[in-house]
Amino acid sequence: MTQRVYNFSPGPAVLPVAVLKEAQRDLVALPGVGMSVLEVSHRSKWYTDIQKTAESNLRRLLGISEAYAVLFLQGGAVLQFSMVPMNLLTGGSADYLITGSWGKKAYEEAGVVGRARIAYSAKDHKFTCLPTDGEIEIDTQASYAHYTANETIHGVQFRRTPQVGDVPLVCDASSEFLSRPMAIERHGLIYACAQKNAGPAGVTIVIVRRDLLERAPQSLPSILSYRTHAENDSKYNTPPVFAVYMVMLVTRWLLDEVGGLEAMAARNADKARILYDALDDSECFYRAHAQLEARSLMNVTFRLPSEELEKRFISEAASQGLFELAGHRSVGGIRASIYNAMPREGVQALAEFMQRFRQHYAQ
Amino acid sequence: MTQRVYNFSPGPAVLPVAVLKEAQRDLVALPGVGMSVLEVSHRSKWYTDIQKTAESNLRRLLGISEAYAVLFLQGGAVLQFSMVPMNLLTGGSADYLITGSWGKKAYEEAGVVGRARIAYSAKDHKFTCLPTDGEIEIDTQASYAHYTANETIHGVQFRRTPQVGDVPLVCDASSEFLSRPMAIERHGLIYACAQKNAGPAGVTIVIVRRDLLERAPQSLPSILSYRTHAENDSKYNTPPVFAVYMVMLVTRWLLDEVGGLEAMAARNADKARILYDALDDSECFYRAHAQLEARSLMNVTFRLPSEELEKRFISEAASQGLFELAGHRSVGGIRASIYNAMPREGVQALAEFMQRFRQHYAQ
Repeated sequence: MTQRVYNFSPGPAVLPVAVLKEAQRDLVALPGVGMSVLEVSHRSKWYTDIQKTAESNLRRLLGISEAYAVLFLQGGAVLQFSMVPMNLLTGGSADYLITGSWGKKAYEEAGVVGRARIAYSAKDHKFTCLPTDGEIEIDTQASYAHYTANETIHGVQFRRTPQVGDVPLVCDASSEFLSRPMAIERHGLIYACAQKNAGPAGVTIVIVRRDLLERAPQSLPSILSYRTHAENDSKYNTPPVFAVYMVMLVTRWLLDEVGGLEAMAARNADKARILYDALDDSECFYRAHAQLEARSLMNVTFRLPSEELEKRFISEAASQGLFELAGHRSVGGIRASIYNAMPREGVQALAEFMQRFRQHYAQ
Repeated sequence: MTQRVYNFSPGPAVLPVAVLKEAQRDLVALPGVGMSVLEVSHRSKWYTDIQKTAESNLRRLLGISEAYAVLFLQGGAVLQFSMVPMNLLTGGSADYLITGSWGKKAYEEAGVVGRARIAYSAKDHKFTCLPTDGEIEIDTQASYAHYTANETIHGVQFRRTPQVGDVPLVCDASSEFLSRPMAIERHGLIYACAQKNAGPAGVTIVIVRRDLLERAPQSLPSILSYRTHAENDSKYNTPPVFAVYMVMLVTRWLLDEVGGLEAMAARNADKARILYDALDDSECFYRAHAQLEARSLMNVTFRLPSEELEKRFISEAASQGLFELAGHRSVGGIRASIYNAMPREGVQALAEFMQRFRQHYAQ
């Protein structure tokens, strides 16, 4: 069998090996069904049960009440950048908290649909920090307020849910979804593409408070309306069957093998500590991008003394089985994404490599 | 290993066993990569090569010139019902040829976006027939004309490309895509969800003449603009990596194992003939829905003397390993979908079952 490497990709990203093996075992024919999951009808009892289980697993893991619908959509978080304002703006204006590239993009796309306003931006701080509650200038009449829980490119992550008063809070949770518990009831809508912690690319999970479903204007194309998908149990059109099946397997792994999101959060904090210690103990050879209190537990971003050394770091790491460590092309540097399924051993191997590399190249 | 059944589902549908086995073999770790295809970055060289190969396979199979862009999108054909008018209407009116439920739905969704007009409808004929060229009343000023090459619910399929003069022709090819050659250059845009003949649910292929990309209005959200996806090589957002990989495997199977679309079309015609002969030789026990010249080679739809017998037919067939034969819930009856990957043996087994069933129940 082919040897697996350590994959620090920001997404699509590493998945639990036990989940991959289960998907592999049944890929040609599901026991008791006699078809591949890639062939089975989305109207079949088998798939209906799979999707229901994926939903109930999510409800258990995150404590989602029936006041919220849980949807499985296509188009990634980027389609949500447009669907959120299309469904929720209703002629008003929306507030955006911008702590990195993805929040900025969400804000810009909202501006194509209607009126959007910046309630906070960390741009002048080069997206290294988070707002204090006092720094968020909320328009109390806003249709909603949007934030990005974790910014993959800059490696900054909200520690707690931002305070926006009575304005419905919308969260792009893509890159931290299922990595820790969330205060669901503080939110009006949460969306997350799967390809970080929840499954493969191709499905996006939307958790939306049911009263907000009523906001969708009649002029909206059916496929772009959350109400359509809620009323049709995410089967208004053919759902991405295989990707939803994978979400079911991953959430079951979180429940049965990991023991829930508190346990997952503890594992993730431990893994992140190993890497941040390696940065902090490096006598400034490695410099973290994010300020201490804003550091992401999912994407550890840092620089080396020169771009030349960064290139060398990336290629030497790859030669030792540590892959996908290049920072996003828009910012450069190094980024180690250490999502749920990245084993502690992978993080330790990276920390040890970092130490060897520094000892060799530090002047 | 679990025994496979014959799956006559209209989509998601049967896939080539050789393709499923290849996907299964590498699902935990791709040789030379060390990651699962479910984990690999869409920016990696490996995925870039996969997507390029999928595209070049499609270009070879269908004879698509560089005057057309080939896109891999999400959201299924149903999202295309809205994206087509959003991108191509530009304030004008579009003509729709309605030969079944899907064409009707496409027409209705176009009406949400802008002005749409019916250039032909077979509704008064209960969607059993196709238009003659003289019956199509084209508005020569229309922004485009839309037709559905094959209607899965009613089982009617265009024999040749409809004549619409100089109006750009748009085709929903979803349920016949890759089942036979197509006159690409007669079209302005062709779209097809994958889950019939091209792969699993979760990816939609769009073939669009490049000059039409310029029509997209500036007010369109980026993610809903074909131009965005063409300019970004279908990687404006994270593509559904696994589904595109499956399209690559299926198209390679069509090229290398089947020998191209002429050969595939011959196989499909042969399979369809077996079933239609079983209908025509049944002394009206089985009655085809579609008129002779409109019969689909992909979805064979028919009725039995009573709904009671239809229920019995479906359950007895299932007991003999012949699954998913119920007609669409909106029309009832029987539907046997016999896409590319349905083996001739499966069709023969169904024809033999039909004969036995008739002998037993015909009065």
